[in-house]
Amino acid sequence: MQLVIGNKNYSSWSMRAWLLLRAAGIAFEEIRLRMDQFAGDPGAAATDSAFARRMAGLSPAGRVPVLVDDAGQAVWDTLAIAETVAERHPGHPGHPGLWPQDAHARARARSLCAEMHAGFGALRQHCTMNIEFVRPEMGPELLAAHPALARDLQRIDAMWCDALTRSGGPFLFGDWSIADAFYAPVVSRVRSYGLPLSAPAADYAARVWAHPAVQDWVAEALAEHDFLAGEEIYRRQRD
Amino acid sequence: MQLVIGNKNYSSWSMRAWLLLRAAGIAFEEIRLRMDQFAGDPGAAATDSAFARRMAGLSPAGRVPVLVDDAGQAVWDTLAIAETVAERHPGHPGHPGLWPQDAHARARARSLCAEMHAGFGALRQHCTMNIEFVRPEMGPELLAAHPALARDLQRIDAMWCDALTRSGGPFLFGDWSIADAFYAPVVSRVRSYGLPLSAPAADYAARVWAHPAVQDWVAEALAEHDFLAGEEIYRRQRD
Ligand SMILES: N[C@@H](CCC(=O)N[C@@H](CS)C(=O)NCC(=O)O)C(=O)O
Ligand SMILES: N[C@@H](CCC(=O)N[C@@H](CS)C(=O)NCC(=O)O)C(=O)O
Repeated sequence: MQLVIGNKNYSSWSMRAWLLLRAAGIAFEEIRLRMDQFAGDPGAAATDSAFARRMAGLSPAGRVPVLVDDAGQAVWDTLAIAETVAERHPGHPGHPGLWPQDAHARARARSLCAEMHAGFGALRQHCTMNIEFVRPEMGPELLAAHPALARDLQRIDAMWCDALTRSGGPFLFGDWSIADAFYAPVVSRVRSYGLPLSAPAADYAARVWAHPAVQDWVAEALAEHDFLAGEEIYRRQRD
Repeated sequence: MQLVIGNKNYSSWSMRAWLLLRAAGIAFEEIRLRMDQFAGDPGAAATDSAFARRMAGLSPAGRVPVLVDDAGQAVWDTLAIAETVAERHPGHPGHPGLWPQDAHARARARSLCAEMHAGFGALRQHCTMNIEFVRPEMGPELLAAHPALARDLQRIDAMWCDALTRSGGPFLFGDWSIADAFYAPVVSRVRSYGLPLSAPAADYAARVWAHPAVQDWVAEALAEHDFLAGEEIYRRQRD
């Protein structure tokens, strides 16, 4: 099984799929494609990039992540990857960390993941994932400038607190699950841009950040040193 | 089991969840909330609407559809509803029409649904679902004005043709499945705005439109006669 991903510093969807496999202890071969369609100026033509050419042969949707299973079949889109992996590891005795075992908790975990998958547009637009970019002083300014960002953050804080209260923690549904993998890139954004959280949400964010699979991803992201101008929304060059 | 939905004429996500249950022959009680937060001018404050007040007690995400199961638990977001319903009707002998039976087809169906769930922003922005609005002469103009809309349509056409070629039709994965329910609102948009499709894709769209569950939804949408100004992007009043 192979997982095709983009730059670890920037690709939040790649991070979700990679984390859910890694944290569940499922072996895979990682194929990392440089997202060179974003290497030039924002708005530059992307279709003739090496990334676009590789993706054309891999997935009709043209985006990472893509899971290529042992039969050579491509599964694209993070949520489809999550469901397919969970289905192929039923009961996952040796693989905790996929969906919660309890049916009601599982339905809620799916609601949270689907909400992330289609939502939080302001957070995604104004606080793009950029692991090596750490400017916590920007938070208040960003929140004041973008009321929709403040609403996104408020909803995420409330969602985390509600899930933690129900489960008792330490993760959203007790033990680590796919839902934590889905919100891990949000934790990175909270750190990069200094977005304020309530105390229980901030504690949860710290636990996610300290998770070994998250730490592995972050270390590899920081080792990349690959500045992609089109992915940078607040600077023109590395500081 | 209850399904909370919005206006049938406008709410494409409600349509998906409703269709997937109805087409699979799964009984549910329908609770329809008027989306009165969009009744006034676009941009008017929505938070004090009757819709917002009812939703506050139903789902923390505040959007339709919401499935309330027999234990009173809310499952929100269409994709989470789809997975939860499919999981609770395993093998679904009396309920064909959920995920395809074949594991590879199922992984592809999930990829298509997840792609719809997070994507096609231009189609959703410029061609909002509005079943009773039929202006096929608008298509060429809209496509010329919005290149991203043309790209969305091209991807959908290619996706449908690929799936139909693999399965042999008549629906995306042979028999009707959740994937067809996910793309049914796209078929409505194609009709409303006269979006051009290749012959196999147009034939598929006609079959979706003729499906009894789709026809039931459409008839009920046309019977609503509830003009919501905030959902209308091309007119200020009903013609
Ligand atoms: N809904 C998709 C989103 C994937 C996505 O947007 N991936 C970005 C990187 S995080 C990408 O591949 N961008 C490349 C491009 O659009 O050219 C998923 O969940 O996998
Ligand atoms: N990702 C959600 C989207 C749901 C959604 O956007 N629903 C719209 C109606 S189609 C809604 O409830 N809008 C009301 C609002 O935002 O106030 C899903 O799949 O259920």
